[in-house]
Amino acid sequence: MDRSQLEKLLAAVREGHVSPDDAANQLARLPYAAEAGEAVVVDPHRELRTGVPELVFGASKTPEQIAAALSALAKHNGGALATRVDADKARAVKALLPDVVIHEVPRALTLGPTPARPACAPICIVCAGTSDLPIAEEAALVSEFLGAPVTRIADVGVAGLHRLLARLDDIRKADVVIAVAGMEAALPSVLGGLVDRPMIAVPTSVGYGVSLDGLVALGGLLASCAPGITVVNIDNGVGAAVAAVKIGRLAVRP
Amino acid sequence: MDRSQLEKLLAAVREGHVSPDDAANQLARLPYAAEAGEAVVVDPHRELRTGVPELVFGASKTPEQIAAALSALAKHNGGALATRVDADKARAVKALLPDVVIHEVPRALTLGPTPARPACAPICIVCAGTSDLPIAEEAALVSEFLGAPVTRIADVGVAGLHRLLARLDDIRKADVVIAVAGMEAALPSVLGGLVDRPMIAVPTSVGYGVSLDGLVALGGLLASCAPGITVVNIDNGVGAAVAAVKIGRLAVRP
Amino acid sequence: MDRSQLEKLLAAVREGHVSPDDAANQLARLPYAAEAGEAVVVDPHRELRTGVPELVFGASKTPEQIAAALSALAKHNGGALATRVDADKARAVKALLPDVVIHEVPRALTLGPTPARPACAPICIVCAGTSDLPIAEEAALVSEFLGAPVTRIADVGVAGLHRLLARLDDIRKADVVIAVAGMEAALPSVLGGLVDRPMIAVPTSVGYGVSLDGLVALGGLLASCAPGITVVNIDNGVGAAVAAVKIGRLAVRP
Amino acid sequence: MDRSQLEKLLAAVREGHVSPDDAANQLARLPYAAEAGEAVVVDPHRELRTGVPELVFGASKTPEQIAAALSALAKHNGGALATRVDADKARAVKALLPDVVIHEVPRALTLGPTPARPACAPICIVCAGTSDLPIAEEAALVSEFLGAPVTRIADVGVAGLHRLLARLDDIRKADVVIAVAGMEAALPSVLGGLVDRPMIAVPTSVGYGVSLDGLVALGGLLASCAPGITVVNIDNGVGAAVAAVKIGRLAVRP
Amino acid sequence: MDRSQLEKLLAAVREGHVSPDDAANQLARLPYAAEAGEAVVVDPHRELRTGVPELVFGASKTPEQIAAALSALAKHNGGALATRVDADKARAVKALLPDVVIHEVPRALTLGPTPARPACAPICIVCAGTSDLPIAEEAALVSEFLGAPVTRIADVGVAGLHRLLARLDDIRKADVVIAVAGMEAALPSVLGGLVDRPMIAVPTSVGYGVSLDGLVALGGLLASCAPGITVVNIDNGVGAAVAAVKIGRLAVRP
Amino acid sequence: MDRSQLEKLLAAVREGHVSPDDAANQLARLPYAAEAGEAVVVDPHRELRTGVPELVFGASKTPEQIAAALSALAKHNGGALATRVDADKARAVKALLPDVVIHEVPRALTLGPTPARPACAPICIVCAGTSDLPIAEEAALVSEFLGAPVTRIADVGVAGLHRLLARLDDIRKADVVIAVAGMEAALPSVLGGLVDRPMIAVPTSVGYGVSLDGLVALGGLLASCAPGITVVNIDNGVGAAVAAVKIGRLAVRP
Amino acid sequence: MDRSQLEKLLAAVREGHVSPDDAANQLARLPYAAEAGEAVVVDPHRELRTGVPELVFGASKTPEQIAAALSALAKHNGGALATRVDADKARAVKALLPDVVIHEVPRALTLGPTPARPACAPICIVCAGTSDLPIAEEAALVSEFLGAPVTRIADVGVAGLHRLLARLDDIRKADVVIAVAGMEAALPSVLGGLVDRPMIAVPTSVGYGVSLDGLVALGGLLASCAPGITVVNIDNGVGAAVAAVKIGRLAVRP
Amino acid sequence: MDRSQLEKLLAAVREGHVSPDDAANQLARLPYAAEAGEAVVVDPHRELRTGVPELVFGASKTPEQIAAALSALAKHNGGALATRVDADKARAVKALLPDVVIHEVPRALTLGPTPARPACAPICIVCAGTSDLPIAEEAALVSEFLGAPVTRIADVGVAGLHRLLARLDDIRKADVVIAVAGMEAALPSVLGGLVDRPMIAVPTSVGYGVSLDGLVALGGLLASCAPGITVVNIDNGVGAAVAAVKIGRLAVRP
Repeated sequence: MDRSQLEKLLAAVREGHVSPDDAANQLARLPYAAEAGEAVVVDPHRELRTGVPELVFGASKTPEQIAAALSALAKHNGGALATRVDADKARAVKALLPDVVIHEVPRALTLGPTPARPACAPICIVCAGTSDLPIAEEAALVSEFLGAPVTRIADVGVAGLHRLLARLDDIRKADVVIAVAGMEAALPSVLGGLVDRPMIAVPTSVGYGVSLDGLVALGGLLASCAPGITVVNIDNGVGAAVAAVKIGRLAVRP
Repeated sequence: MDRSQLEKLLAAVREGHVSPDDAANQLARLPYAAEAGEAVVVDPHRELRTGVPELVFGASKTPEQIAAALSALAKHNGGALATRVDADKARAVKALLPDVVIHEVPRALTLGPTPARPACAPICIVCAGTSDLPIAEEAALVSEFLGAPVTRIADVGVAGLHRLLARLDDIRKADVVIAVAGMEAALPSVLGGLVDRPMIAVPTSVGYGVSLDGLVALGGLLASCAPGITVVNIDNGVGAAVAAVKIGRLAVRP
Repeated sequence: MDRSQLEKLLAAVREGHVSPDDAANQLARLPYAAEAGEAVVVDPHRELRTGVPELVFGASKTPEQIAAALSALAKHNGGALATRVDADKARAVKALLPDVVIHEVPRALTLGPTPARPACAPICIVCAGTSDLPIAEEAALVSEFLGAPVTRIADVGVAGLHRLLARLDDIRKADVVIAVAGMEAALPSVLGGLVDRPMIAVPTSVGYGVSLDGLVALGGLLASCAPGITVVNIDNGVGAAVAAVKIGRLAVRP
Repeated sequence: MDRSQLEKLLAAVREGHVSPDDAANQLARLPYAAEAGEAVVVDPHRELRTGVPELVFGASKTPEQIAAALSALAKHNGGALATRVDADKARAVKALLPDVVIHEVPRALTLGPTPARPACAPICIVCAGTSDLPIAEEAALVSEFLGAPVTRIADVGVAGLHRLLARLDDIRKADVVIAVAGMEAALPSVLGGLVDRPMIAVPTSVGYGVSLDGLVALGGLLASCAPGITVVNIDNGVGAAVAAVKIGRLAVRP
Repeated sequence: MDRSQLEKLLAAVREGHVSPDDAANQLARLPYAAEAGEAVVVDPHRELRTGVPELVFGASKTPEQIAAALSALAKHNGGALATRVDADKARAVKALLPDVVIHEVPRALTLGPTPARPACAPICIVCAGTSDLPIAEEAALVSEFLGAPVTRIADVGVAGLHRLLARLDDIRKADVVIAVAGMEAALPSVLGGLVDRPMIAVPTSVGYGVSLDGLVALGGLLASCAPGITVVNIDNGVGAAVAAVKIGRLAVRP
Repeated sequence: MDRSQLEKLLAAVREGHVSPDDAANQLARLPYAAEAGEAVVVDPHRELRTGVPELVFGASKTPEQIAAALSALAKHNGGALATRVDADKARAVKALLPDVVIHEVPRALTLGPTPARPACAPICIVCAGTSDLPIAEEAALVSEFLGAPVTRIADVGVAGLHRLLARLDDIRKADVVIAVAGMEAALPSVLGGLVDRPMIAVPTSVGYGVSLDGLVALGGLLASCAPGITVVNIDNGVGAAVAAVKIGRLAVRP
Repeated sequence: MDRSQLEKLLAAVREGHVSPDDAANQLARLPYAAEAGEAVVVDPHRELRTGVPELVFGASKTPEQIAAALSALAKHNGGALATRVDADKARAVKALLPDVVIHEVPRALTLGPTPARPACAPICIVCAGTSDLPIAEEAALVSEFLGAPVTRIADVGVAGLHRLLARLDDIRKADVVIAVAGMEAALPSVLGGLVDRPMIAVPTSVGYGVSLDGLVALGGLLASCAPGITVVNIDNGVGAAVAAVKIGRLAVRP
Repeated sequence: MDRSQLEKLLAAVREGHVSPDDAANQLARLPYAAEAGEAVVVDPHRELRTGVPELVFGASKTPEQIAAALSALAKHNGGALATRVDADKARAVKALLPDVVIHEVPRALTLGPTPARPACAPICIVCAGTSDLPIAEEAALVSEFLGAPVTRIADVGVAGLHRLLARLDDIRKADVVIAVAGMEAALPSVLGGLVDRPMIAVPTSVGYGVSLDGLVALGGLLASCAPGITVVNIDNGVGAAVAAVKIGRLAVRP
């Protein structure tokens, strides 16, 4: 319920078409109608409020819950996406919902066409090692689902600095950069000193021993001496994509 | 040294004005001239490369080092800024460099006028509690130094939700939001579900006991269920400002 | 053994019905009789002492141990409950003890009827996300087993604030609130500023990466700026229920 | 703004005394009026909303900020309290605000009389060691400020179990127990098996080495095998008092 | 090689029966003969040196390595013991070495008779919960293998204090106490204030959430306010038994 | 109150010299008389119960509290000891209580003569580095206060293995060994393979960086591959001394 | 592209054989040609740049990715090696690439002959326990693959000091020492005081409880009082081998 | 005592010049003579054993202890060095020992001339930021004290990559590299891919918030994807220098 709807409701009160009591009930619930009482409550109006539709986080849901959420969201929004769906769970969802498309590398599912979205500036997704690919691809898939044109650049870790420098021009062509890196995650620090674009860094859980499932990569990114890098949770390709798209839309708004 | 300068150099080689040996020497050092060999090497060309000038991080520098760095940067760039300069150190720098201006709340110093910068969209800096003000003001001062128009909104923590909701319209007027919060840092999660702007969250070290000097605030922000929030290091107002300005410039580029 | 029994024993000593030596033996063991020497010693008098019967913590027990404990407690108390019993273990217990009832979502078992308990004020159990349901349901089942009327409100996380505000009236109808939340666990902070009831927060292990299996949620709840929230261990629906029932009974005692 | 005020506003709209536009403006800000724009925004209506007035957390405020907040709150509420004010800061506040009363052991300040509050059942505050006294006294002072009758029992740690058992009857006379303990914090676990009252445990930062400034005490309390104990942040006497008073009021409401 | 052997060797040198060069070779290797060069080098003389034979730590060994080590040690010492051998591995070892005896609860294996050992005072092994039994039994089995008479007392956690107090006399009959406890591990603190025996505490990994696989129990034991409690690694029943036996032998030496 | 006193009381009841009511009152407080209600409650009977008198932990007490506790304990026990009293606080206590003796290296105070204690076998206190001396001396002073003969061996860290081996005979002359070590704390592991005595290891906070104020030393000691080493809290010389004396007394009891 | 190639290119520009534009393109990419755009980009020139060829880290790669990387590297370098390939994955790679040789203990794969490498001084690899063998063998295999002569010494932990001292002469024959140790990792500290060679310590994840999967071993090694020990990540046999070979080559260069 | 001395002693035994008993005494103490019994035992023979003299670690020593240790070592070795001596302590030592030379930036002291040492290959010490200088200079001073020629390169952090690349040739001229870096410590990772020298990385405690006093830098270095980097403790310039010199001596031995 936006301002115009609010004014319309108040006008209806003034004109006596709606009683103050009924209006109070509507207003007490705020301008949104939630299907209260059900275990899985999808939030179809989230896109209106935040510019980004609800995405299904599959890791802690059963196949039945994922299928139900995808169907409900696709019905409202025209298309839906679920992430963190491993191979076994993906097959189980597809058995329930045969129209679902399985995206293997990013471990994601889509249902229905990608809905039309606002224009977005190009995003470049850079990743340091082969092992970081699932997260980089998750970021790419979500960015594209949200309407962004995406360039992917893989395996440009700093241990082979020339690989990274060789791709600098390509990176500079984008307006927003997502840098995905595990282990010591030095890539975004180096890149942060070379490009002037907003950059979002995604630490990954790639590594062993002292890597602590990505905590050291996360810490290194936050402690980076290259100012202006912002960071999301470990392996959070979705969050990076959403942030990048919000920036990318600003960059091309009329 | 940008591409055109590179081509000019190579043309000079072709025409015999520069010997291959001299050109090799220049190129071996990359297109930048560093004053190698000195302990404090300022990087005056950083702005050309990354869009943002070098800022002086005062916490681990002596007053002499801060004064020297401010002077060198102000000479090249027209104006300079140092952060993390506590009251005692600030006085010591001012004794060495009387033109310096002390900014008390954000614990910062500036020297010279704020240089002209590219246009930037408005940034709103929201902070949860009075104790978060120094960090919020650091973010504000740096944003303004980099050319951004800034709105400040203080003391809108979630324990008094109405205070936050009362200011939503003001927040929505900005194109980029910086949310500063300590303790459990719930503010950005709530805000993330209410506005569609890119949001950068700054955890602060405000709190005690289990707050662990901001680590819990940091963790909560990274674990936030509101997708699209990006995060910087604890108390890192500078980093948030630089990131916000990079986004804000994209939003108003011609 | 309460004071009246103690005085009775001492009177019996005075009157020569009990020898000082026998009385010393009884007193040395304190007023309670434990079945010493067995590996699983149930504590049937715990309810007399603490108002709450012993509940079986199934996670680190074998099916045989769970069945034995449920039987012993049900014999003494009229009914018994075991928590943290996963699907496989539940089946194994049911094979040993066919009268057991399996509660799937909260992963719990009950044996026999719910015994009559003291009156208890209504408890509202609020949970932030679908993934928090098993813990919320554990809290609900234990609360009901202890005699409390329970209202359940699911999926009202702060990223969709309207969902929560829409249910505020329902929450305010209860006398005690249990708030279950994972990830950054902002829900109880927000709720703590909106309701005046005693609130017990249960962090859950829902999340990934920096969530650290619930440690960040736990930390955020303890660091909350909304005073008066108390907290139990991660995923500890039982503890929250016991605490809520102790409060709820106070609220309706004659 | 409660429901009756909301209905009054809507009736005024119907009758034409308030234009829909003005009403929309008021409603957009929610039923509360915040003094937006100032750095220190006190929340005088918090008591109406949550049953507990705003208390001033002195640790991260300047003497000037503390004095201003105490004055503003005392003006609205009749009396005010600030915690975490060390000796030096307390003297500085008193210099600014001579009517302030300094409470040395709990490191707190009060201004004005203790306002009348709703009735509250008796609270017993138990503490394990001499070093825990400042926190226990903070809890006691806040409880009394909120209207609760308080019993204090000090130095009953479990290493001298008899001391604790000797005071059990006194503890059982209260309706709510606050147990304050540092080091290994075993006291609340033992007490939790002996009394049937709601108990709130406050870990303290007392200890050294592996105590980690109270983290081990906190962990031990949360991991306690005595169900129904709830916990607040390390050294958080205020939070325990607020929670206890909310419970104590329920216990004696008409 | 003890002092008398050393003197014998040197006498043999003096008398010319052993050349200085041969003696140098023997001495260069120190008074012990290690079968250098093999991957599994058992240390049959450890008992001479430290009073305690080598025990096989099965957790990180293959069944083949365990069987080889047990055989070698049994040959030298008359009997051998392996710990941390789970059910599957135990079966695999028994298939290789049919004389092995499987001890199910403590997850251990023995081969051959328990060798005669020095006399040892009685040890009492107390454990807080059913889930702590495997570790308590590991401590008991190792103590008995090393020649100690053992009393076992199970399920006397502090949440039911009367259970513990009822067994105090039995505990006081032993000369050394091993206290095994998980979760918040309050048992040894309480016991430490009630008995005057040397006490060794074993934290266990029993618990969940904030228990951190026994780290909180460990921390609580080390931070205990009952002085004189010493602690071993989490789940280290073996270490506690070895320490207790070393003490128990001192107590009864002639 | 021991068993004989209990029987005497009960006989007095039988004979009518004590009323059942009075006896109940005495028994309700358990056989001990605690001065309930005062902030500092010394426990003069602790020695009867645990064999070790109460020692004053000075770190978190004011000079006034230390002086009061020393005086009270010296009055009951004939002599008293306080630890963790830094130089400034020691002077302040001495000003209040001129008979106090300051022990500089171990940062301790004693008042009055060392009371007669039960016989104790010799204890050897070994320390790895000069920086560990304050803790080693604290352990030595407390051991001697409790009646043990003590040998001190300093600066025998494993980086100079010969130093340690040169003192092995001296170490073997004692019946109990306390090994004090900071940094990586390898000394007790090496010693544990060379001597057959009960050994108590004290990690110290000596070190920097990754030493984490002694946590790494503590962890290394608990993870030691030399079985039978037991451990106390970081810098806890008192606890090691109490444990060693309890063992040493067993070793020489008649 | 080394300096001579760079001068050759510039000379070609001067002579007009290469246009400035083409030269700019080559220089912009730095002197290296990366096969940009493919997911797995092997770096065959790494050996030229760093002296050590790329090794395949198998842990986070699929069998297909491992096979592809081994083939590509073997084609360029004559032979290739992959580490962290568990038994199942090894079989899957061998099915794809039958020429691969499986090395069971170090869990590694090699393809093709070991290529000729620069001369290297002898390396001695010492390990503390049987459980450390896989890592010690990984270090040995990689060292040999890189051209080093290797001596292996197993099971010389400090709990049996004589075993270690018996092998000192063998250790001293090498020019570089790799010491592999889990649990408390005291071996390198002891060894560091006995030999004058460069020593690289590898902490292993062997241990349980407080060992924290090798973090305590790592911490102990870094905190070691024996100066000059350097450390690599937990279980990082590869890193230790590469470091040792770089040192070993220096030691025998002409 | 080396092998020839051992054979000489045994020959003396054979010839009757030394009794077996005396020889046994000598051998029992191993070939070294320690001045046992004093609190500060310097180890003047350490250089013979490990190639590196004892250095005084000043942080946890009093000025008196530092002066005593420097004097003793200088007497034996011709010159001595102490590190971690802050300005105040340095003045206090100089008052006791006027010949001492204070080195301000590296916070170190030297006494007497630098003794002649074995030849050593050149070492290059690279540091990322101005704040890392004290540690870099500590490494440089110790390296020079041990006889190494040293090149210093400051302020070449990766955020200004050109600065680093501009100095690559200078770095490559050394045989061993010490890289000093705080914050995210990306410098050594980048350098590790560009040079083929043995490299030792020193994490520093420079940084704030999530840097955790250098733990994140340490973790990043250990997790580095550039194989062959070895690491020392946080701020441990001494350890890096000793390791580098051991390598450098190998590189130039005849």
